[in-house]
Amino acid sequence: MRTVYVNGNYVPEDEAKVSVFDRGFLFADGIYEVASVLGGKLIDFPAHIARLHRSAGELGMRIDVTDEDLLAIHRELVSRNNVEEGVVYLQMTRGAIDRDFLFDTDKLTPTLVLFTQSRPLIDTAVAKNGMKIVSIPDLRWGRCDIKTVQLLYPSLGKMEAKARGADDAWMVRDGVVTEGTSNNAFIVTKNGAIVTRPLSHAILPGITRAALMAYSEANGTSIEEREFTIEEAKDAAEAFISSASVFVGPVISIDGVELSGGKPGPVTLGLRKTYIEESLKRAL
Amino acid sequence: MRTVYVNGNYVPEDEAKVSVFDRGFLFADGIYEVASVLGGKLIDFPAHIARLHRSAGELGMRIDVTDEDLLAIHRELVSRNNVEEGVVYLQMTRGAIDRDFLFDTDKLTPTLVLFTQSRPLIDTAVAKNGMKIVSIPDLRWGRCDIKTVQLLYPSLGKMEAKARGADDAWMVRDGVVTEGTSNNAFIVTKNGAIVTRPLSHAILPGITRAALMAYSEANGTSIEEREFTIEEAKDAAEAFISSASVFVGPVISIDGVELSGGKPGPVTLGLRKTYIEESLKRAL
Repeated sequence: MRTVYVNGNYVPEDEAKVSVFDRGFLFADGIYEVASVLGGKLIDFPAHIARLHRSAGELGMRIDVTDEDLLAIHRELVSRNNVEEGVVYLQMTRGAIDRDFLFDTDKLTPTLVLFTQSRPLIDTAVAKNGMKIVSIPDLRWGRCDIKTVQLLYPSLGKMEAKARGADDAWMVRDGVVTEGTSNNAFIVTKNGAIVTRPLSHAILPGITRAALMAYSEANGTSIEEREFTIEEAKDAAEAFISSASVFVGPVISIDGVELSGGKPGPVTLGLRKTYIEESLKRAL
Repeated sequence: MRTVYVNGNYVPEDEAKVSVFDRGFLFADGIYEVASVLGGKLIDFPAHIARLHRSAGELGMRIDVTDEDLLAIHRELVSRNNVEEGVVYLQMTRGAIDRDFLFDTDKLTPTLVLFTQSRPLIDTAVAKNGMKIVSIPDLRWGRCDIKTVQLLYPSLGKMEAKARGADDAWMVRDGVVTEGTSNNAFIVTKNGAIVTRPLSHAILPGITRAALMAYSEANGTSIEEREFTIEEAKDAAEAFISSASVFVGPVISIDGVELSGGKPGPVTLGLRKTYIEESLKRAL
């Protein structure tokens, strides 16, 4: 049985509980991060913590724990649960208090929950065979740049993708692709340009996205930031997604249109290799 | 200390907890209802339960408890907590399971939580003095007709209203008013027409809204369903909100523009009186 961290305590997972008055439960007033673990070490940890601070700042949510303590909790859970490969999930909410739309952040003690999930991240079916994507309208709220737990629509979107015989969905708003249900979207054009849409309130500022851009820049291959349509994506040479737990996931079809011969493309696989190598060098 | 209902058990409120793996906590995969209590009896109860079924149906969420049992739980909590006037809050989620965007509803046991809040609903400051409204953009998701716990934006909206010296916010999308942060929006034109926008995916199908329409129809004064702008609202003779716990709440200013002489208008107060009288006749 896993050990879970809840508000200062390490407890067995079946005892890991929060108050029904927690604003994360009643109002989705919570933020989260998911950091990957490779070889027992944390990937891109400082960037995840930086984004946690950004999310909290945008919502006026207090963070009562130091970054050093957060790192220590992550490491303790990885150790207690013997995680060699997998993820550490962190959720922070504004805290628990009798239900009211109005709140006083100063009078609330934030809730902090962390748990691990052990699973292969390197040798996966997605890395080997790629993933099929379908497009769906983006019906999410207007601040998808804040990593909140308002994940009902992305969850339903992934279910719809599965029902349509695919692995995930890309969302489309105002005629252009925003992002995947839990990842950023990229295409490689027939001219070899790697393209992803610019950051805005419409998408999450992905940690893996940012790292990929930095590593590519260092390698002399800039990633172009511009919007693209689902039609341009279907006509691309390759497509892929980036996320903290999939890293770089090859896309082999979009709405039934096969890409790169129905198998992971070479540019995609190169980026995946680079990302994993560079991340491991920086792992904590 | 209140007694709270959690998954079949009546427990003291400080022991009322749910798993950190509850999809209501991790994915905002939860729906809710709030029924008012007057004189110890439930107001508009059958309509709330009907809407709960609708919300569950739209999300493919299972309801494992009968309507009779839900009524019995409501009554038991009202009795145990000696609620004369107040509300019963009900939240249902898809259940608890290790975190994954994909889920199998059939393998999940829905979480059911109910608690009460005692407070005056009839003799309130809002009923006597009215409320000030400010307008904000509507940044919520595209299915506001489903009563989910994705309430972060409405909660922040009410906080913004408070910061701007008002009591609540009306949200504006595509140039027209959608609704309040936790209520439907109405105006009374200078010609005496009572107007509220039609139902769509953009607003909650309010129980009090529907009851007001039915009672007005029976009294020979139909409520007109059409969209209106915030400018039209500022120029109206009166304005008000409807909700399950406020009933009919007079609006006395919008974005600083005073309405009906800065006090509750006569049409509004008439509707409030009718609603309370008619609801009490049907209370369970």
